[in-house]
Amino acid sequence: MWGEPYDQPPMTGHTPLLLRALSGETTPRPPVWFMRQAGRYLPEYRALRATAPDFVSFCLDPEKAAEATLQPMRRLPFDAAIVFADILLIPRALGQDVRFEAGEGPRLGELPSLASMGLLAPKAGAALASVGETLSRVRAALEPERALIGFAGAPWTVATYMLDGQGLDDRQTARRHAYEQPALVEGVLEVLVEATVDYLAMQAAAGAQVLKIFESWADGLPEDLFHTLVIEPHRKIVEGLRARGVTTPLIGFPRGASQFAECYAEQVPVNGVALDTACPALVGERIQQAGKCIQGALDPLALRAGGPALDDQIDELVAAWESGPWIFNLGHGILPDTPIPHVEQALKRIGAG
Amino acid sequence: MWGEPYDQPPMTGHTPLLLRALSGETTPRPPVWFMRQAGRYLPEYRALRATAPDFVSFCLDPEKAAEATLQPMRRLPFDAAIVFADILLIPRALGQDVRFEAGEGPRLGELPSLASMGLLAPKAGAALASVGETLSRVRAALEPERALIGFAGAPWTVATYMLDGQGLDDRQTARRHAYEQPALVEGVLEVLVEATVDYLAMQAAAGAQVLKIFESWADGLPEDLFHTLVIEPHRKIVEGLRARGVTTPLIGFPRGASQFAECYAEQVPVNGVALDTACPALVGERIQQAGKCIQGALDPLALRAGGPALDDQIDELVAAWESGPWIFNLGHGILPDTPIPHVEQALKRIGAG
Repeated sequence: MWGEPYDQPPMTGHTPLLLRALSGETTPRPPVWFMRQAGRYLPEYRALRATAPDFVSFCLDPEKAAEATLQPMRRLPFDAAIVFADILLIPRALGQDVRFEAGEGPRLGELPSLASMGLLAPKAGAALASVGETLSRVRAALEPERALIGFAGAPWTVATYMLDGQGLDDRQTARRHAYEQPALVEGVLEVLVEATVDYLAMQAAAGAQVLKIFESWADGLPEDLFHTLVIEPHRKIVEGLRARGVTTPLIGFPRGASQFAECYAEQVPVNGVALDTACPALVGERIQQAGKCIQGALDPLALRAGGPALDDQIDELVAAWESGPWIFNLGHGILPDTPIPHVEQALKRIGAG
Repeated sequence: MWGEPYDQPPMTGHTPLLLRALSGETTPRPPVWFMRQAGRYLPEYRALRATAPDFVSFCLDPEKAAEATLQPMRRLPFDAAIVFADILLIPRALGQDVRFEAGEGPRLGELPSLASMGLLAPKAGAALASVGETLSRVRAALEPERALIGFAGAPWTVATYMLDGQGLDDRQTARRHAYEQPALVEGVLEVLVEATVDYLAMQAAAGAQVLKIFESWADGLPEDLFHTLVIEPHRKIVEGLRARGVTTPLIGFPRGASQFAECYAEQVPVNGVALDTACPALVGERIQQAGKCIQGALDPLALRAGGPALDDQIDELVAAWESGPWIFNLGHGILPDTPIPHVEQALKRIGAG
């Protein structure tokens, strides 16, 4: 069944706001969801997380992962849920060991050979069927007017962990390899493109109505590497999904690279471009004017601050982007020490509360 | 004597290339210097550093600092020397304790009151007179066709350390304060602008022919904060120097913010804008077309890689920027494990070797 497109219902008045915005419509108010809305700022998440022996098992347990996905939806009027999973499930599906050490971030085992990863790549969706099971459970429990988002890490971002063995902040190992061992990097990206297409197709078939590609480490790349390492793999993923008949709308998120966001929007056939905290208002407007939906880009630190500073930041985004297709979101994940009332304040300010 | 402008000689055929480029001239080849060209990739630097008890004493010892500044000039055909110092000397001049723990980065003591820092700010140049002594020694030893650069950390970047107590990578403490305690942040920036003007005026009087403002942490800021925290303080520094009669050319470096670089170039009356590794070629061209010199932006990882990858990266920069005023440099500091022959290769490729 993997690769069969999820049957998108025709758009009606009951179509989720998120899908309307991604179709290019300027909605009466922007749909809203927050990156990491299922997470540590919620006490019920912390309690649930404590019931799993480790983070990878937690992500791969459909009952617990579905519960984590749904927790913020019960408490807060988000317009979309995003499946609880992790971008490092793909290396695991490709045969690389992945562990999360408490307080230390991910630790990956030795990089498997390109040949062995190449054999596993076309079966990534099947290997991660439990994420599909999570999606199906969530879709069955979620109100029809609220959308369900599936996701994957983008090839370059995932490769930085696979090549480093961990998430060192400046991705120096992977970036060094891009110059010194370009064939290796190209090979890893190729495998990841294939695995990601299969994984996302599986998610669409299992109930995801929107798919998001997270390029968390798009920053710091020279222009030619941005094309090779970010734009090209993203383009291949979208084209690969379309070639398999997957019509699900896609959002791409080249984080930390708003100087290239317009170029990305032109060259990658995604339906929406997610923008980060530091994106100039004008860049978002231009992408909207070119007919694409944008997403973003409230500073998570403004959300944590709350009060007038939060309202001011939201009002600036509204003034800049409300006249085109726009999904209201953070520019980065919600911080664990964000007070829940500040999330409520933001949702109310944008008109969803 | 602080605040008296250094007497710039009229431009002639012997005027250093760096000054010609900063005056808006498209030079026959770009002048070249590298950020951290005095540093750990040089064995003679490591030997010299070992003779000082700690990093702060090293920076404040004019004999050793002048020697560190001159070491790369003896070995390599750089067109400019940059005084060996540190951006955290200013907090020290404002009464905040600054230590560098081996392998751990800087550790700062408690933030002094705004009132006490306010009393010290106008005397920052005098407090750091040893940096002036270093500059005078270097200027006396350096050939006239090679320029001497002085510098300071930009107020926001310095404030992130002062407010954090250390250099945490995402500058979260300082960024949080920007929303939650804006009056404190504004007060610290105001003190830093005043101290920086006095410090840079002293450097110009002591022999610096170019002054550079390093905004190492310009990334991740929403547009309104970029204006308040970066553009405004930089503008005030340039205007403050000009009001004191300091005519020395200035380079501003808003690192990690090339999406705002054109706006920065328009609004801050610097003579040159330094661009980072991830700056699109077109952004640099537009700043040149608007009549300003640019600086940048070779990836230090390409320099470390050497070989054809290095040549390719240099050739792309040449193709993009050689037809306007341009200073060839890295987009970030040289890495400690860079082989010296790769630096020689780069200098030769650009025509300086």
